Amino acid sequence: MTFAATILTLYPEMFPGPLGTSLAGRALGAGTWSLNTVQIRDFATDKHRTVDDTPAGGGAGMVLKADVLAAAIDHARAGNPDAPVLAMTPRGKPLTQGRVRELAAGPGVTVLCGRFEGFDERIFEGRNVEEVCVGDVILSGGEVGALVLLDACIRLLPGVMGAASSGVEESFEGGLLEYPHYTRPVEWEGRTIPEVLRSGDHAKIAAWRKQRSEDDTRLRRPDLWERHFDARDQSASGARQKKKD
Amino acid sequence: MTFAATILTLYPEMFPGPLGTSLAGRALGAGTWSLNTVQIRDFATDKHRTVDDTPAGGGAGMVLKADVLAAAIDHARAGNPDAPVLAMTPRGKPLTQGRVRELAAGPGVTVLCGRFEGFDERIFEGRNVEEVCVGDVILSGGEVGALVLLDACIRLLPGVMGAASSGVEESFEGGLLEYPHYTRPVEWEGRTIPEVLRSGDHAKIAAWRKQRSEDDTRLRRPDLWERHFDARDQSASGARQKKKD
Repeated sequence: MTFAATILTLYPEMFPGPLGTSLAGRALGAGTWSLNTVQIRDFATDKHRTVDDTPAGGGAGMVLKADVLAAAIDHARAGNPDAPVLAMTPRGKPLTQGRVRELAAGPGVTVLCGRFEGFDERIFEGRNVEEVCVGDVILSGGEVGALVLLDACIRLLPGVMGAASSGVEESFEGGLLEYPHYTRPVEWEGRTIPEVLRSGDHAKIAAWRKQRSEDDTRLRRPDLWERHFDARDQSASGARQKKKD
Repeated sequence: MTFAATILTLYPEMFPGPLGTSLAGRALGAGTWSLNTVQIRDFATDKHRTVDDTPAGGGAGMVLKADVLAAAIDHARAGNPDAPVLAMTPRGKPLTQGRVRELAAGPGVTVLCGRFEGFDERIFEGRNVEEVCVGDVILSGGEVGALVLLDACIRLLPGVMGAASSGVEESFEGGLLEYPHYTRPVEWEGRTIPEVLRSGDHAKIAAWRKQRSEDDTRLRRPDLWERHFDARDQSASGARQKKKD
């Protein structure tokens, strides 16, 4: 089955962009995923092809009009009715690897890319649009965020990564950062590969990697560590609960 | 002064990609920023132009070699010695709007894009490389993350956004999400613009926006809300401390 990506944007020429080369590009050529861009401006209703207007209540910038966005979304949904519609916006829920896995397992995704000050808020409820955020930074538009979302999904599609990289032992997949990697030379500028990794003792290596994964997550990402602990506690108490029942 | 971006990658053809059009593209044409791509493979030392090797201790995938990366970084640093070197990696520190502002105010940025299983860990200390992460998702490589980083920086460069969008009232800038936007029509599919925004009462509008900004941050991003509160408490207790002294 082809993963169908539809991008609603004022800059369709930005796609596939970097996703036209390398892994994603080959997968696009092979039909593992498909790309359809929709020019939002084509759904304007006046002769000036207006897509935005000044913000109600005043302020800088322009806001994308709900009626124009709705017409563009309706058009995209007609082509791929089962794909969820996501809007890239800093007010959205941070994208997670878990959500990416869900999306990659589905029929595809329709992505609404904003520009200017953003979207008329009514579009989200009015068209059941999921607001997502890629990183706590402000972009000039949703397009590069959409590329992140697509790239993350595409690499998980069957056949894209190949057998060598299963994608299971990765940062975020188990709720932790991945352990650090090393490769030859054994000594580089006086820095050596940790001895345990050269021991050939697979149990010891696995234990070291688990420990580093936990230590690094605790130190570098206390937010992830806390969530990981909460999840473990919950599943442990869930298991206890089950035993008692 | 030109903001000089240097990208170290195995896929230089991915750049400028989407940053060649729209705001960023015009700014590139105007010399507000410059782009230089460095092919990491050019710094391999064997006749096969090898850039990666198997991970020490075993496991799937390939790891980018520290010696090759170091040579590529040294080359890039010679061209732009004052620009910080950042590597895109899920083990890195999440990129923030604050860090983006710092970078945009500087001489530029050198960005190391990984592929495969990632970098030999020794490169980070060995070459003083800052590890950054854009969103808690796994990408096929650092390239689309680098596009996010660059886009976020470029829009802040003098003259890029124009006077209409000052970039001050944005999500994350004050540690909060931005309030929601609305524009005409006043009624769309039975949904109306909140009355206060049509009142013309600027003080009331400002109060409503502040309230929505706080409410939405608390509900949608408890993590940001907590940090915002901690920062306020610290500056408040700092102010009290100062008064007492």
